[in-house]
Amino acid sequence: MTDIRATLRARLDAAVGSTQVLTAPADIAPYLTDWRGRYHGNAQAVVRPGNTGEVAEVVRACAEARVGIVPQGGNTGQCGGATPEPGGDGVVISLARMNRIRAVDPDNATLTAEAGATLVAVQEAATDAGLHFPLSLAAEGSCTIGGNLSTNAGGTAVLRFGNARELTLGIEVVLPDGRVWDGLRGLRKDNTGYDLKQLFIGAEGTLGIVTAAVLKLFPAPRTRATAFAALADVPAAIALLHAMKQALGDRLTGFELISGPSLALTRRQFPALPDPLPGHAWYTLVQADDSAAGSPVAADLEQALAAEAETGTVQDAVVAQSGEQARALWALRENIAEAQRLDGPNIKHDISLPVSVIPRFLDEARAALLAALPGVRFVTFGHLGDGNLHYNLAAPAGTAPETFLERTPAANRIVHDLVAAHGGSISAEHGIGQQKRAELVRYKSAVEIDLMRTIKAALDPAALFNPGKVL
Amino acid sequence: MTDIRATLRARLDAAVGSTQVLTAPADIAPYLTDWRGRYHGNAQAVVRPGNTGEVAEVVRACAEARVGIVPQGGNTGQCGGATPEPGGDGVVISLARMNRIRAVDPDNATLTAEAGATLVAVQEAATDAGLHFPLSLAAEGSCTIGGNLSTNAGGTAVLRFGNARELTLGIEVVLPDGRVWDGLRGLRKDNTGYDLKQLFIGAEGTLGIVTAAVLKLFPAPRTRATAFAALADVPAAIALLHAMKQALGDRLTGFELISGPSLALTRRQFPALPDPLPGHAWYTLVQADDSAAGSPVAADLEQALAAEAETGTVQDAVVAQSGEQARALWALRENIAEAQRLDGPNIKHDISLPVSVIPRFLDEARAALLAALPGVRFVTFGHLGDGNLHYNLAAPAGTAPETFLERTPAANRIVHDLVAAHGGSISAEHGIGQQKRAELVRYKSAVEIDLMRTIKAALDPAALFNPGKVL
Repeated sequence: MTDIRATLRARLDAAVGSTQVLTAPADIAPYLTDWRGRYHGNAQAVVRPGNTGEVAEVVRACAEARVGIVPQGGNTGQCGGATPEPGGDGVVISLARMNRIRAVDPDNATLTAEAGATLVAVQEAATDAGLHFPLSLAAEGSCTIGGNLSTNAGGTAVLRFGNARELTLGIEVVLPDGRVWDGLRGLRKDNTGYDLKQLFIGAEGTLGIVTAAVLKLFPAPRTRATAFAALADVPAAIALLHAMKQALGDRLTGFELISGPSLALTRRQFPALPDPLPGHAWYTLVQADDSAAGSPVAADLEQALAAEAETGTVQDAVVAQSGEQARALWALRENIAEAQRLDGPNIKHDISLPVSVIPRFLDEARAALLAALPGVRFVTFGHLGDGNLHYNLAAPAGTAPETFLERTPAANRIVHDLVAAHGGSISAEHGIGQQKRAELVRYKSAVEIDLMRTIKAALDPAALFNPGKVL
Repeated sequence: MTDIRATLRARLDAAVGSTQVLTAPADIAPYLTDWRGRYHGNAQAVVRPGNTGEVAEVVRACAEARVGIVPQGGNTGQCGGATPEPGGDGVVISLARMNRIRAVDPDNATLTAEAGATLVAVQEAATDAGLHFPLSLAAEGSCTIGGNLSTNAGGTAVLRFGNARELTLGIEVVLPDGRVWDGLRGLRKDNTGYDLKQLFIGAEGTLGIVTAAVLKLFPAPRTRATAFAALADVPAAIALLHAMKQALGDRLTGFELISGPSLALTRRQFPALPDPLPGHAWYTLVQADDSAAGSPVAADLEQALAAEAETGTVQDAVVAQSGEQARALWALRENIAEAQRLDGPNIKHDISLPVSVIPRFLDEARAALLAALPGVRFVTFGHLGDGNLHYNLAAPAGTAPETFLERTPAANRIVHDLVAAHGGSISAEHGIGQQKRAELVRYKSAVEIDLMRTIKAALDPAALFNPGKVL
């Protein structure tokens, strides 16, 4: 045992330099726990390669020593996908040092970044070139592009721009046997065989390590408009979504649903936030952007909302008159998660459904959950335009946190069973990681699980890549 | 041999009914030749299943008999991907009878179609629901959705809406062992393991048979504007593309490049077509659509072109004042291929490049080709917004067709070598099929070819699906 470890250590030192091979418990501790402190694992070393060749050499060394490999980017995942397993004896490969923007090509509207570049660094490089990289999410200051691609990250602009997958033209991958696949093509059309990049995007590091990517850029938004609308129920919100799409086309970049109780909770925890339209059951936050300077997008948004108020779809609405007002409206949405944390324990679900079945799902889930957990409080919000709900449950007043959280498995079963029955997904944007492995097997068909395992066995026959994740 | 054939025949008859199992030479002949008559193959039978269960039973029968399977949709492919091999002894599975629109869900903006539904039938079903399916290409009256997905079809609206891949949310597939994978999910966000549908999209039937798909729908375009602009050179066209994207955002749905000689050739063959801006070296056709009724998109387009005329990027421009004028401008673009056919033999290339390197590629290819084929005429046009060029060569005046076409391999080598050197693709939208198998191996890296073969061997270990295609 000691010999093998010593041999591996010597190879890793030779590959990346001994200062980039961490083994002291205090040095490796930050890499063994996820950012929320919910997952804890073990590894014999953390290696920090500085370029793709070094990653390949580290992978070859680990493959020959038959030790597991856990790729890690910004360590901001929600499901423990970048945290090694408890009792693991493998190697964490941190991509943090590989953070260069390799190229920006304005005429091709592409940017090539290394895996360890933070999302915000990519956004800024695009902006510096007069263009726009639309992926945006709460962790953008610390999450990395490699992690964004490996989890097919979503965020606030999916309605218009798609997930990370849709924003990616090419990738570079170190394969489980240490070979490098250079798929860094910046082409919008390329029908030459299987689209291999799709396999690695969203695979959560179980099929190889994404080391770089060519990303699509877009015209920068020059005119922005934000509105807040009050509605009687969710079907009205869906009707409004439909109308806004028709009126605004792709200038519609965000359409967020917020329940009255979610808004009330947020304002209770953050009393300085505005209360633009008090006393309604449901709200939507509507964002519209135009790349043309001086576009009438705000007037168009106001007119479209007025038309929906005439028909009774909208009960009341307000359009932000300044950037400051727009930011305050967005703060109502963005602070819900933090307000929940301050309010007490939560059982959270990151689900998606066909938009058309969301009203029925909400009715059925509410009835089933109230029967199983009397007094449970619903904190429902999310990206309605994508069919993605953050369907969260708060403890009934007076219930002890532990007592409530003990019911998590029962609540998950009710919510996920209904999601599956309605053709939805139990993980819309956060992935599987360690958290939802058992749920994945429960809800996927045997054929689909078998196909995934076939792919995994074909590409990583020794099962060394990110053991204990996804499959 | 006879026994095996008789056994298979009996199973096929039992699976789909004997009237749907064709074996007489006259009956199967149309399925053994591609629509342009360039590929001819053989098969022992053509089977026409009526539903997914029948497809699965046919596949199981063929797998047990160890005979090859050639999936076929509308038989409109460009590369012989749906035509059996010469000397083949397998079974063609025609999806033509599976042509139902299974469901339209306006609130979810999705449509579920069977593989044999024609593209135009899908477009019409979307329109009937007040929505829009944007995939559009010359063969749309006879090509089928199954073929569109299996070849990841492109067409005229990729700039705005992407290829067939980007328009697909879920698929149903009969796997090489006859199992059915039901991946018919209508979700815009679903991060639950590997995105398996991506493997089958663009695989040209080599990994299984796509039997149905859930497709994305969009708001219907209500206001359209079309313009024609004259430019001195290709860098000016790229500058104009950049400016139009910024000014029009996603209202820009088409940006076609046409060389002066391509336009002259088309007008010579079709003298009734207009000559809106005579005497320039290059032209672009610009299409802008808005889902809002009464949108000022035409005025915005005119203003944006005027601004580019001020800077000298645009030499002259005209905006269509009626639908009839718009159709006439589009006819200039759409009749180039037919004008080429009438004019004489051609050597064609369906290539893509990063937009930024197109000017350099054109200069280098022109010099190399003129050296190798003195007097060769260039018919260059394509979807500049996607970096996709139809880079076609016509015989020098006075050269016999056969003499010119004998130079095809030499011309391909020059063009494809330069494409590869500049990070481009040798098949932007038509696929590989039989036509470009050797080129694929020549230009892909060994690692990429090996990855493709690994996937093929994992999913179709007996190598029965569409033998002799792609790999």
